[in-house]
Formats: sequence, structure tokens, C-alpha cells
Amino acid sequence: MAGSSFGNNFRIATWGESHGKGLGVVVDGCPAGVALTEEDIQKYMNRRKPGQSKYTTARREGDTVEILSGVFEGVTTGTPISLMVRNQDQRSGDYSNIAEIFRPGHADFSYREKYGIRDYRGGGRSSGRETIGRVAAGAVAAKALGELGITFTTFTRSIGPVEAASANVEEIFENALYMPDNSAAAEAAAYLEECMKHKDSAGGVVECWIDGVPAGIGDPVFDKLDARLAGAVFSIGAVKGFEIGEGFAAAKSNGSRNNDPFVVRDGRVAKETNHAGGILGGISDGSRIIFRAAVKPTPSISQPQHTVDIYGQEREIEIHGRHDPVIVPRAVVVVESMAAITILDGVLTDLGCRMEDLRRKYVGC
Amino acid sequence: MAGSSFGNNFRIATWGESHGKGLGVVVDGCPAGVALTEEDIQKYMNRRKPGQSKYTTARREGDTVEILSGVFEGVTTGTPISLMVRNQDQRSGDYSNIAEIFRPGHADFSYREKYGIRDYRGGGRSSGRETIGRVAAGAVAAKALGELGITFTTFTRSIGPVEAASANVEEIFENALYMPDNSAAAEAAAYLEECMKHKDSAGGVVECWIDGVPAGIGDPVFDKLDARLAGAVFSIGAVKGFEIGEGFAAAKSNGSRNNDPFVVRDGRVAKETNHAGGILGGISDGSRIIFRAAVKPTPSISQPQHTVDIYGQEREIEIHGRHDPVIVPRAVVVVESMAAITILDGVLTDLGCRMEDLRRKYVGC
Amino acid sequence: MAGSSFGNNFRIATWGESHGKGLGVVVDGCPAGVALTEEDIQKYMNRRKPGQSKYTTARREGDTVEILSGVFEGVTTGTPISLMVRNQDQRSGDYSNIAEIFRPGHADFSYREKYGIRDYRGGGRSSGRETIGRVAAGAVAAKALGELGITFTTFTRSIGPVEAASANVEEIFENALYMPDNSAAAEAAAYLEECMKHKDSAGGVVECWIDGVPAGIGDPVFDKLDARLAGAVFSIGAVKGFEIGEGFAAAKSNGSRNNDPFVVRDGRVAKETNHAGGILGGISDGSRIIFRAAVKPTPSISQPQHTVDIYGQEREIEIHGRHDPVIVPRAVVVVESMAAITILDGVLTDLGCRMEDLRRKYVGC
Amino acid sequence: MAGSSFGNNFRIATWGESHGKGLGVVVDGCPAGVALTEEDIQKYMNRRKPGQSKYTTARREGDTVEILSGVFEGVTTGTPISLMVRNQDQRSGDYSNIAEIFRPGHADFSYREKYGIRDYRGGGRSSGRETIGRVAAGAVAAKALGELGITFTTFTRSIGPVEAASANVEEIFENALYMPDNSAAAEAAAYLEECMKHKDSAGGVVECWIDGVPAGIGDPVFDKLDARLAGAVFSIGAVKGFEIGEGFAAAKSNGSRNNDPFVVRDGRVAKETNHAGGILGGISDGSRIIFRAAVKPTPSISQPQHTVDIYGQEREIEIHGRHDPVIVPRAVVVVESMAAITILDGVLTDLGCRMEDLRRKYVGC
Repeated sequence: MAGSSFGNNFRIATWGESHGKGLGVVVDGCPAGVALTEEDIQKYMNRRKPGQSKYTTARREGDTVEILSGVFEGVTTGTPISLMVRNQDQRSGDYSNIAEIFRPGHADFSYREKYGIRDYRGGGRSSGRETIGRVAAGAVAAKALGELGITFTTFTRSIGPVEAASANVEEIFENALYMPDNSAAAEAAAYLEECMKHKDSAGGVVECWIDGVPAGIGDPVFDKLDARLAGAVFSIGAVKGFEIGEGFAAAKSNGSRNNDPFVVRDGRVAKETNHAGGILGGISDGSRIIFRAAVKPTPSISQPQHTVDIYGQEREIEIHGRHDPVIVPRAVVVVESMAAITILDGVLTDLGCRMEDLRRKYVGC
Repeated sequence: MAGSSFGNNFRIATWGESHGKGLGVVVDGCPAGVALTEEDIQKYMNRRKPGQSKYTTARREGDTVEILSGVFEGVTTGTPISLMVRNQDQRSGDYSNIAEIFRPGHADFSYREKYGIRDYRGGGRSSGRETIGRVAAGAVAAKALGELGITFTTFTRSIGPVEAASANVEEIFENALYMPDNSAAAEAAAYLEECMKHKDSAGGVVECWIDGVPAGIGDPVFDKLDARLAGAVFSIGAVKGFEIGEGFAAAKSNGSRNNDPFVVRDGRVAKETNHAGGILGGISDGSRIIFRAAVKPTPSISQPQHTVDIYGQEREIEIHGRHDPVIVPRAVVVVESMAAITILDGVLTDLGCRMEDLRRKYVGC
Repeated sequence: MAGSSFGNNFRIATWGESHGKGLGVVVDGCPAGVALTEEDIQKYMNRRKPGQSKYTTARREGDTVEILSGVFEGVTTGTPISLMVRNQDQRSGDYSNIAEIFRPGHADFSYREKYGIRDYRGGGRSSGRETIGRVAAGAVAAKALGELGITFTTFTRSIGPVEAASANVEEIFENALYMPDNSAAAEAAAYLEECMKHKDSAGGVVECWIDGVPAGIGDPVFDKLDARLAGAVFSIGAVKGFEIGEGFAAAKSNGSRNNDPFVVRDGRVAKETNHAGGILGGISDGSRIIFRAAVKPTPSISQPQHTVDIYGQEREIEIHGRHDPVIVPRAVVVVESMAAITILDGVLTDLGCRMEDLRRKYVGC
Repeated sequence: MAGSSFGNNFRIATWGESHGKGLGVVVDGCPAGVALTEEDIQKYMNRRKPGQSKYTTARREGDTVEILSGVFEGVTTGTPISLMVRNQDQRSGDYSNIAEIFRPGHADFSYREKYGIRDYRGGGRSSGRETIGRVAAGAVAAKALGELGITFTTFTRSIGPVEAASANVEEIFENALYMPDNSAAAEAAAYLEECMKHKDSAGGVVECWIDGVPAGIGDPVFDKLDARLAGAVFSIGAVKGFEIGEGFAAAKSNGSRNNDPFVVRDGRVAKETNHAGGILGGISDGSRIIFRAAVKPTPSISQPQHTVDIYGQEREIEIHGRHDPVIVPRAVVVVESMAAITILDGVLTDLGCRMEDLRRKYVGC
């Protein structure tokens, strides 16, 4: 049942279907006093918008976000912030052929098994458009975190077999694939051309760095910061793997290599290396948080596929229409959004972990 | 703050420190009518118990579990099931040297930064013994799920560089490392000997199969079944990566290869392949659920390491005492437990997803 | 922080301010398969609408509700139902004089103390218009419950000193005060005229009956059905008391009088009397659920009042504009809505309380 | 299902049956740095202990509480505090006659309808002994709140028809009924003698004052502080009514009398009167919080009662054994405990309601 909300102290509830009237989110628990405009949010929305390049669908949504509540005279008031995007370009006809057939790699079958009925137009709730609410909320979280000096750098680490060799932050926005390595991006673009030629699609890996998180965020034992990030990022459709720091490589390493020695740097405790990815025992250690998410290839491909229809008959299907040959570039901002939401929730939850925190606010000493 | 509970409808709250009076869990939301004995739980506990082989610590805990509530005449009553293990073998002296020093790869530093103080005896709450509550609760969940025909097969997929080539289920309990491949287990044992000789440690990968889960479990969009499993498994200390089905390999695949064609098998819709790992759009599809978790090398190693003490002085540390050179074999049952808890919670949450479910129970038609 | 959501398995998140762009609610966890139209919801909305009689504000809002998601071809799909009402008649100027002054009996002071800033237009989030989201969600819950034979009868028990002597259900909608006793309603109307003449206001008591709730709903010990109802109803602004069954009168009674003897009626266990109000030990017993809520007099009165402004200066204030001399009649549907939301949440939560419930759905026996 | 936990940031999970092995609570989210001993908790436990006077059962439980985790060297560490009381005096035989019969006014019938089975020994989970976990947790919350200057004064306002005319705090502990008026207590004692002579029981009203709560605690709109208190207190078995400030009397008042004028007192904004009971719009206003709870007469009476057995046969029952003729005095500390838990949870939740709170802790300005 009720699975469309996320977070404890900073809590979001998203809603909306691909071809319904719109999509949105209610953001509850945002601290009062954050300067927030529609432009702040639109900037994030634009990073996930389709139609940005030939590797994303030609569908043109304005995807214009509207702030409906929770902001007064340009500042958050502490009450719920309702954000909405109206759907405009719906061409329902495009999807009528999938009403009776289960697309491989899609949620058509499992939704039907669960609910008995489903909104088949464009995937309904299981469409990638569902992420609109996540990104709108992520923009709010990121704005608040920015005031604490917490920043995000998120990019495409790899597309199919092509991996970014370097991580030149300034190159991320210089190519349509958001890779921090323009030459890898060119290679990946060529690979995608090849995929499209074969009516096929590709996957990839998104990487996220979070800087400025103070040590102490995350709550043992089930709300470890990495566990919360894993759950948050894995809730994005198409994500099939998540790792932090060395991740799966750590499983092949040794304690002597994988442990990060503590050192004193600028008078503060720091780590000489960061194999842990910024989190120890589920609590941030003050280093950069680094994680990666594996994104599967777009399941909508136009070559013929074998499947079954809702009457139990085996069928061939060819999926036409507007589909990205790779969703990784558009997933970048979604991953960043879920990370921002998770970090802000963790920060708010950490606030009262020491009795002195309470004394400072309420007794004034 | 309050991060020691997990689950919505099947909810557990764990407690306890490595060297405190004991550890335990309160299991709330277990349906009434499950036959449950202390032996059911003890069987699970024994799989995580230390002292089972030379690759696990020599510390001998009885780790005898006691059912304190929620079971009447051998059957669950629907009220909270409180389970406890008293600590017996505490040798507090062993750990006194770490009171003032931050062990690399451990949570000593991050706990202190968060809370100001910490129970340094044996790692306190961040010790591996914290998992006792998880396993006790997992045994309860697995017992209930067994009545629905849902079963778990969990094993060590790899240790350091040594991977099980086959997956012979019957071999899992034939070797101390719980590998489904006795010859890989022998090779892994030799590798661990080598690690121990160098006062070093190893990591590995745990794999879990869940059979019998009906299609329809999991709740869009944030409570996707894979997202819940990711969060649950990642909350286990030392887990650094999680993947489902093809996982990270899917990121390098193509849609045409990664999509699982639907077919009709025995009159039911099934999938020809299972790259998805049993979950589509966050909802189980009736296939086997398959996931893997990467476990880092034991951070406690007896070779000298560089670190910092609580006074901000750089120091050398050698960690002696009883430490597993690899924790993967003991993590197997912990991973299975978290999976069982998550699946049962998902099943209970799914119960009311159709109006006809309510009618059937309350109106009788 | 995040306090604008309510419920576990049936969960609502409301948003909106009195004079913002609109108000609404996201309803998550509604079972799939409920026939639902905007008219179903509008019917509830109209019961709380202002401008219905001279005892409610002259402010004319269309208060037209729009279903934005979660309903496909007239039926709920199990995904979040987003409901919105746009604000139309905002006359912000009316309220400019209260920007700098704390109205007695209102939340102006406490909001400012909490958040530092507040949307002072019409009370912002603390306005009675906040209940729009509650009522929209309540209509959805009531529709689903209706399919299970669960129905609500809610009315004004008293206004000021005037109490309905009888409870003639058919008279409830025959008078503007929703009293089940037309002659008491006439008397109450005269009392309200008197109040208005003195620029004063009145309070009253709302009573709610819930029929058809099967025995077994409610979850010990903190989620007792009456505890959930108490919390739900008390969250409505202006509610100052809540009682179930005999309520405060029970405190003066004796066990011999207050206990309800069990009897066999139509072959089923029933209670001879219903002092308990339909709930025993926090679990419904199959009898009618009966509760009452005390509503305070409207705090906005036009006679001069002593108060303080935001600069800490003592001031006189006269509150003009459109204010109900009594809010009880409009609170009736709000109380019913919160009750419906609570009952449906309780029903959904009860679904898995026996192992046989799980077997019936998943194993089919 | 899972209804045995309460609270968000300060969260408790209670467990245990009247005649099982014991009862207890896991307290999660207590800030680190609170000095806490078993004596602190025992002091609270003793206030609810039976055998204190002739108006409470002769059953003698040591009810000795043990701290099992979460406290290190006398100070809370921020990890879960597990508290347990072992049952000692169980005389199971006393209750065997009620295994097959539904006691009027008890939860026997509703539990059986819900779960199919029940632990009938002493009422199982629905026994008054269930409150042990609440009181143990309440003691922890009260200790932490004490460090913020927040204190509780809780007493018996009335027993049956006898009401305390005065509220002399110093008299509360001078009589066995915890009334703040020794002469009313004497009168109430005489009334109870009369009840006992007639094999009958009485109810009463508990009143609680909370001083020192800063303005700003409580979260609109569903987590209003009064709504949380109502839900918390109503979850105590036998509570049938709850009111805050003027409560039900407010329903008969007028706005001009019920509104509390704001004034400036000692340079701060204060209220001239406190009809609101310390909470405006769900947020504390800095005044004393005042609420009352109606407690029903003990349902266990030894005079013959009509009822039905589990085979559907009408029967007579006489309940012998150890039963309080009134439970109000023992409920006093339970009410106070639930209030303390609720207030601390509210305080912790309030911590992050302004962006400046976050800046102060993490940026240091």
C-alpha cells in the first residue's frame, strides 16, 4: 500500500502518472527560513527534462514546476511545500497498443498481478516521469543543504562498456551525457549510435559525490546513512546495483589495504585514504561521500521481442514511439535528488542526538 | 536518533551492545497463529555463532535465545515477541586499549563525533554482535514465510578473489565457509590461511535466493521490494555493495539481452530468463529473487596501523584479541534474516492492495 | 517538522494555506478497485463549504475539487490519489491588519515562536481552510468503507448550552446546524443570534456514530482504535475534548453499571448495552462506535480584545471580516472525515493479523 | 499489526504479558549524555506498583527494573535503552476459570475476534501490567526533560463523584489516592469502602500539569502537541475521555470568555488566562500545559455478571482474585509517563524547524 512517501523528518510524498493530469510532490519538514523560488526548482527539473539531445526522447514537455504552498514572500515557512507539474504533451494514442500486452523489462505484468488493474498509458505510475516529484523535492533539499555548505557533484561514470577515465568536474556539463571526461563522452556517443542502429539500448553507471557533510550524520543501526542512501537510490526505477566507496571491489581487497588510516590534517582528524566512501559504521566521517548506482539498459526497444498478453497468449511486440536509447544521463539528477533528500533527512534527524543540542536551543547554554 | 527499528507492518526494534548485559529484539506485527519455539530461533542463531571454525573468533558465547513474550502454548498471539540473549563471555579487559584510540575501518571515530561518548567495549553497538537481534527476528519471519512456501537459500558466493564456480545447494553446509562449491571453499580456506599468516583479513560476497514469493509483493515507488531489500541489507555493518539480478553487469548490457521475454509455462505467465532477479518495477514477478551483497574485509587486523587517538595525537595501533579473518560466512545468516524480515513486511503490506482483499475478509465474498 | 501526514497503511499528506494558491491532499494506500469520481468527493466538500447559511462565513469559494492522479477510467488504481482545490476568493487586504498582531485564541503567536516567520494571510496553515485536504481524503476513505458496509452518522450534539435532546437521524440535514433535533436547532439558532448581537461566538459538541465496523479493528497497545480516533479528531483545530462511549461520565460511574453484559443475539455475541462505545481494549467489538468532540468557540470575534503585537507592545484588536459565529456545523464533516480515514487505516492494518489471512490470499486455503 | 511502538524521534517499543516471563520496553532515540540509573526508573515504577495500599491489589511484584543496554558508565550513549521487569508472582491458577469466558468490560472478546487466540492468563497483553513498559520509558523521558527545566505534576482530580476542590501540590503524596486535597481524599476513600462493600468499583479523573515547556513545541497539522497527547493518553487502557484546558466546558463558553488575552509579563509575551491549556494551534505557547483523562471503573468486579463463553453460551461470571476497586491512583504515573514521552518526542522533532537551528549546529553561527 502506501509506498509513495519517503523520509522521516524531511518527508516527501510523490504522486502522478505519465499520462494523467500531472505529477508532483508534497515536501514536508523543510525548515523555515530557506529562500526558495520556482527557478531554484526549475533548474533541477531542466536537468531531467526530455528533448535535451538526440539521446533523450523527443517528447517535449515544458515540465514547468509550480509552487503551490509553503513559501511566503520567497521564504519557506516550515509548512508543506506542494510542487506540481501539469502534463501537456500526452498523445495517448501512442500507447494504446500496449494496453493488452506485457512489455519485457517493464512493470506491466507485476503491476497487473498486484493491483488487478493498471493505468497502461505510458507506463502510468511506473513511467520515468514519476521521477518529476523526486527531482522537485531534491531541489528543495539541495537548496537547504547548500546553506550548510553541503554540495553535490553527480555524473555519468560509464555508458555500456565506456567508462570515464578521468573525473574532470568542469567537463560534466560540456557533453550531453554528463560525463566528466569529454573524450569518453564522445566514445559513448558513438556506442549509443551503434545501439540505435540495432534498435537496441544501453545502460550505465551514475556516480555521486557529496562534499561538506559534517561527521556524525546517520543513525545506527537500520538508518545508517549508507543504508538510507542505498534504499533511496534503489527506489529509482532501472537501478540494479548500488555501492559505496570501494563497493564490490572491497570484497576482493584485504583489511590492510581497505582500512583508511586516520591522520591529523589542518588540526582535525581526517582519513589518509577514502576507501570507505565517507561513511563508517553508518555514520558520516567528514570525508567526501562517494557512491555509484548501476542503471539497466532502457527496456523499451523497437526490435521485436517475445512476450505474453493479458489473455495469456504468447505474442511478438515492437515498441515504437519516443524512447531514450539510454536513460543514464537523465537519471543523474534523479540520483542527486534522492541523495539530497536523504542527506537532509539525516541532518535533521541528527540534530537531537546529544543532550547538549537540546540544552543549547531551549536553555540557551 | 531512533534508528534501531525496521519495517512497517512487521517491525523489529533491536537493542544491545557487544559487552553490555545482553542483546535482543522486539518483533512486532507477527501474525497470530505461527507455531514458534526457541529451537526455531536457536537454529538461526547457531549459524551466526562464533567459534564454529578456525575462521571465526574463538570467543565462545552460548548465545542462547530466550522468548520473553508473544508466544502462548507454542503459538504466536499477534502481540510483540521479545527475544533476548544474555552476554556471558565478556573479558572487558581485552578492549581497554581501544578506549582512547580510533581503530581504522571501525566506527569509533564517527560514533564519537556523533554522540560525544561511546561504549568502547568491543565496539559497543557497532559490534558484529549487534546482528543477534536481526537474526533472532529473521528466524521468526522465515518461520512465518515457510508456511506460505517462501524459502531462502543463502551462501558465500566469493571470498577475496576466490569465487564459487557452481551453486550446489547441498554443498553449502558441507564446508565452514558456506560456499555452494566445496572445491572453491578449499581454495578460499587456503587463501584465508595466507591472509592470517600476514596478519591480514579478507572480504567477500554473499548471495541470496528467495523462492516462492508470489507476484505482486513490493510497493511503488519508494517501497519497491528491491529498494527495501537494498536498505535492509546495506544496514548490516561491513556491507559496501548490493545488486539484484544482473546488477552492475546490467549497466554494461543491452536492452535486447537484459530484457526477460515473457512466456507461458505450465499455464502461467513466466519469464524465459531472469536477468531482473525476480523484481520488475519494484514488484515481485513470481520468479526467484536473486541478490548479492559485497562485504568488506574485517577491519580488525593485528598488523600495525596508523591512526589518531581521542586527544588528536597520531598513533600506531595493533589490534589483538579474537577477530575473524573474514566475516562473510557469519554474515550469510544475517543477510538471509534481513531478507526474510523485508519479505514478510512486504507480504503484510501487500495484503490490502485490492478492494477485493478487504471484501473477502470482512464481507466474506 | 514533518507533521502534515497521517496514517500508516492508508496515509494522507495535506498541504496548503488559507490564502495561497490552493489546498490539497495526497492519498496514498487506497486499495485498487474503488469506483471514485470527483462528485463523490465534491459531495463531502460541499458539507464544509462556507456560505451555506448565515452562521457560516459569507466568503464564497467554489472549493471545486480536482482529481489529479490515482484514478483511471473511474476506478482507483492503488497509486497515490492527488486532490486539489484552487483558492479563488482571496481578498488578501482583509487580513493585512493582523500581520503584526497576535490574535487571542489563534495560533499567530505560537507559529511565530516556532518558525520565526508565518504566512499571516487568513491564518495561513492554521486556518480552518486547512481542513479541505482532510475532507477530500475522508470522502475517499468513506467511499471505500461503504463497500464494506461501514457507514457514518455525524451531527451537532450541542451548540453552546443547547443540546439535542433526541437523535433523529433524518432531521440532521433539515437544519443548517446539522442537529438531529429540529427544535433544538431552532433554539440554538436563537442563541447564535444573541451571540452575534454581542459580537461574540459559541462552541459546541460534534457526535459521530460508526456502524458496520466488524469486531477486531484496532491494534494494541498504542494503535488502539480509540487512541487513533482521539489523535485524529484532536488534530482538528479548535477541538478541546474527545470522549468515547460514556466518556467523562464513566469516571463517575461504577463497574456494575458501566460494564456491558455480553449476550447472544441472532446467534452472535453482542453487548446488551454500549457504554464502551464500541471499542474494548482498543479493539472494535462489533457494536456501534460512538464518540464526541468538544469544539471551542470561534476565536475571531469583533468585540475589542486585549493583546500584544510582534514588537512586544500591548494593543487592542477588533477582528472584522468574515467569520463564523460558530464553527461546529462545518466541523461535522471534518470530524467524520478524520474518523473515516482512521477506520480505513485500521481495517487495512488488521488485514494481516492472523496467519490464516496470509494463507488465504497467497496459498489459497 | 505492529501497534506496540510509539513516537517518532523518541520512540518506544513495549512488550510483555501479565503472566509471561516479564515485560519491558526498548527506548530508542534518547539523546546521549543523560545521567541515568536504575534508581531513576525504579522511582517511577514504584508509583505504579501494586500492593501500595488497600485500594490496590495485594499482588506483590518486586517489579524491579533492569537496564540492559544503552547506558555506559551511568550516562546514556544515544543507543537503544532496553528495560525489563521479570514477572515473579504469577499464580496462573487464579485465572484458569476465565480461559473460556468473556469478562464484561474487558478485551477478552475483542482480542479473540481479532487474533483467533489469546493469552488469557491475567488478561495477557491487555492487562494493566502492560503499562510497565510505558512507565519505565516515561521515567527516561522525564529525566531528560528535567535537564531542560520541564516538570510534571500529575494527580487524581476525582474519584467517582468526589472531586478535589483544591490543588495543593504538596498533599498529592500525602494520601494513598494521590489527590491534591487530603480531605477530598478521605471522602473518596470512604466512597471506595462503600464500593468494595457492594463488590463494585469506581472510576475517576487524572489531571496533569506540565511546566517549563518552551513555546514552539508541536507540529501542524496532524502532530499537534495536543493531538499527540490525546493519542498517547488514550492508548492507556481504561481511558475514555481526554480534554485540554477548558476541554468540554469550552464547548459551552463564548469566544469572549474563552480567548486568553495576550499580555506582556516580565518583558515576555504571556497569556492573562490559560483556558487554552498551554497549546494554541497545536503548538505550545509557553504557558502551563493542563489536561485531564477520564478513567473508567475497574471492570473486574466480584458481583455476578451476565456474559457469554467462547462456545457461544450465555453464562454468569463472578470475578474473584486481586483487583483494585479503582485504578485511578495507579494510572496517575502512567498518564505522566505518556505525557513525558510525548513531550520529549515533540521537543526532538521541533529541533530542526528553523534553518538557523541547522546553521547553529553545523556551521557554528
